Amino acid sequence: MQFELTKIFLEELNDAIARDDQSWINVNILELHYADIAEIIDQLELDEAKYIYYCLPEDTQSDVLMELEEDIRDRFLSSLSSKEMADQLENLDSDDAADILGELSEDKIQEVISHMEDDDAAEDIVDLLNYDDDTAGGLMQKEFIQARMDWPVNRCLVELRRQAEDVEQVYTIYVVDDMNRLVGLLSLKRLLFADPKNKIRELYTDKNIISVKTSDSDEQVAKVMEKYDLVAVPVVDLQGKLVGRITIDDIVDFIKEEADKDFQLASGISEKIESNFSVWRISRARLPWLLIGMLGGILGAQVISGFETGISKIPALAFFIPLITAMGGNVGVQSSAIVVQSLAKGQDLFGTIARRLAKEALVALINGILLSVLIYGIAYIFGNSQLGLVVSISLFIVVIFAAMFGTLIPLILDKYNIDPALATGPFVTTLNDVLGLFIYFSVGMLLFNM
Amino acid sequence: MQFELTKIFLEELNDAIARDDQSWINVNILELHYADIAEIIDQLELDEAKYIYYCLPEDTQSDVLMELEEDIRDRFLSSLSSKEMADQLENLDSDDAADILGELSEDKIQEVISHMEDDDAAEDIVDLLNYDDDTAGGLMQKEFIQARMDWPVNRCLVELRRQAEDVEQVYTIYVVDDMNRLVGLLSLKRLLFADPKNKIRELYTDKNIISVKTSDSDEQVAKVMEKYDLVAVPVVDLQGKLVGRITIDDIVDFIKEEADKDFQLASGISEKIESNFSVWRISRARLPWLLIGMLGGILGAQVISGFETGISKIPALAFFIPLITAMGGNVGVQSSAIVVQSLAKGQDLFGTIARRLAKEALVALINGILLSVLIYGIAYIFGNSQLGLVVSISLFIVVIFAAMFGTLIPLILDKYNIDPALATGPFVTTLNDVLGLFIYFSVGMLLFNM
Repeated sequence: MQFELTKIFLEELNDAIARDDQSWINVNILELHYADIAEIIDQLELDEAKYIYYCLPEDTQSDVLMELEEDIRDRFLSSLSSKEMADQLENLDSDDAADILGELSEDKIQEVISHMEDDDAAEDIVDLLNYDDDTAGGLMQKEFIQARMDWPVNRCLVELRRQAEDVEQVYTIYVVDDMNRLVGLLSLKRLLFADPKNKIRELYTDKNIISVKTSDSDEQVAKVMEKYDLVAVPVVDLQGKLVGRITIDDIVDFIKEEADKDFQLASGISEKIESNFSVWRISRARLPWLLIGMLGGILGAQVISGFETGISKIPALAFFIPLITAMGGNVGVQSSAIVVQSLAKGQDLFGTIARRLAKEALVALINGILLSVLIYGIAYIFGNSQLGLVVSISLFIVVIFAAMFGTLIPLILDKYNIDPALATGPFVTTLNDVLGLFIYFSVGMLLFNM
Repeated sequence: MQFELTKIFLEELNDAIARDDQSWINVNILELHYADIAEIIDQLELDEAKYIYYCLPEDTQSDVLMELEEDIRDRFLSSLSSKEMADQLENLDSDDAADILGELSEDKIQEVISHMEDDDAAEDIVDLLNYDDDTAGGLMQKEFIQARMDWPVNRCLVELRRQAEDVEQVYTIYVVDDMNRLVGLLSLKRLLFADPKNKIRELYTDKNIISVKTSDSDEQVAKVMEKYDLVAVPVVDLQGKLVGRITIDDIVDFIKEEADKDFQLASGISEKIESNFSVWRISRARLPWLLIGMLGGILGAQVISGFETGISKIPALAFFIPLITAMGGNVGVQSSAIVVQSLAKGQDLFGTIARRLAKEALVALINGILLSVLIYGIAYIFGNSQLGLVVSISLFIVVIFAAMFGTLIPLILDKYNIDPALATGPFVTTLNDVLGLFIYFSVGMLLFNM
């Protein structure tokens, strides 16, 4: 049922473009869903992409444009003149148009806007450009359906028909008072089955109306929409006036981006990176953690150098350095991952830190005992029970400490408004490395009577 | 505007429950949104929770039930008799009811079903229980609105009014032929503005109808809904007959769960863990990676022991073991994280492995040179330039190798259908530890002429 993009299809398409075969394109491309067409264009060279793009009807063009991968879209748009770009933007939803314009320089924005023919659309876009990207104002679109509470149903239907032309997906009608303040909601379902002589004020619901303010952060918007299972949320300004709506597709994108960012932060990459970024940008994003890791390594070297005489007497002590640091790191990362996720979900309302630490300590105790016994058994079999005892005891202590730090560090970072996802990476592993080495060699010195 | 749960509110609520103060509850609880009520109940003891729950009107009860945290809901439901549970399930959407029933034993399921009074609802639920949890069949609900293509608009309105009672959110009407096969879609907007004498066949669209099959995986469903920006997708059986629909809220939950799972896998936790799981279950989920880490540590010890004579001559060689292993691990994790994310997005259609490796090699080259020069500089300042040279050269080699392995291992795992998120954790770090140690000591032996 769904279209699937194959290498063969792409080859045929390139051939068709080369021989300017409009009928092949009509049959094989124009009938497709815009998301599929975007997927195809993503794979083409710029000239071919433009060729196909201009074969499309205007409505489809704008849909396809928003589905393109970001860098492909940017490259495509920057090849257009201001006039051409204005034409393309006029067909987009206001939020999408504003997002695209927002990436341009002030001068270029003014130029493009001046070429737009639809003044209302231009005004909406200019208005949206005032909001920060990561706020509800930056996410919202100006296309929504509203009804005044004093309208009768049939007047409402007439007005809605007019408004609905601009609005792709209608989920709910927003009901406003004569000051344009949001007062309630009306479902299409309700309107559909209403008596035409009824007034909107008799039909709409004003119970538990969920809205967001233009200044709310994108994170807050996502939380509200998830919590209340909304497919669209109305946006009001400081006076409670209805100014826009945010739809779920934007929030799904946001949720995925946040998850990506957390995954990368925990993997030691400091800014949101796409795999198609330049080599320099990727390098720069990775360096901070590597530098922290190197600092940790140098501190570790300091710790070990304090035990140099011990190592020269019993060089075998050095053998288990990687085991101790690896296990400290692993346990720390495991403990912090759970805390980071709970924090991201907004849990831990009433300070459950003590309970959480106790639980982590128990888990660490169980795993620590298991691992310590195992490593001692292995050492015993290989006939080195004294060194085995050192590794076993210090491993146990390291596991307990690592679990405690892994739990505490993200909580502390969160308290100081640093993204705790950072903790699962650099902080926890570096700290545990240094501490683990100190514990290991101290136990070694003690048991070998040095 | 939105409700916020405070400690003081909870204390007042507990007082009100204790003195059986219905009017306080009416004013302060019953007016709230069901998602807020669920948030409150999540914080109560079982008896208090039940007390509040049974104060709610029936409709709200079912909404609240589905918003409760999973373990709280399970505890609550398992305290009910089969008859009570049947009453609660009848008010739920079919997919939610099936999810809850699916967690019970066969016997208990039969008992609960036998107590249900609405036969149609019971039949829907029994039918849904046949599908695997992680397929479209397991995700879908039986509540949707359908219209036959030969109906006129006014007949359609009458039928829809009847159907719409069961369906909470109506986005689109699914149009079927006389064999109940899905043939197209009709938006409520379109129906609202249609001439009552028109037939559905003149109104509906059959272009690019996106649907999923009952046997499609939840991952496929999520990809389809995201790609085509759908808030609901119809589900058809093998014969193309319409059997259900899946709404976006279920998919948002799925996306979040997948992101959580990936984050945990990459942090070395082998099954999906919630912070409220038992200590034993958490321990078990963490052990596999710890054991792999320990194995890696033992292998590392083997490698180092091969260079024992070197260490006894120059104990300072041991100082930089943690630096080498940490940097190998960090670089490997960074490289693999990007690959894992690209794979999760379904990118890399046409085998871009060679290009990707080349890019990673370049990034590694840049970072490797920077780090090597830096560490040599530090060693030089501290007056140990020969050891500094060993660390510097081996660090450079380790960074390059780690980047290559970090890129290749997730690609290989993915080829063999193992979740590549696993790679960012255990595989890459362990392999890089062992290899890095070998490189470091080999360079050391060479430069110190041992």
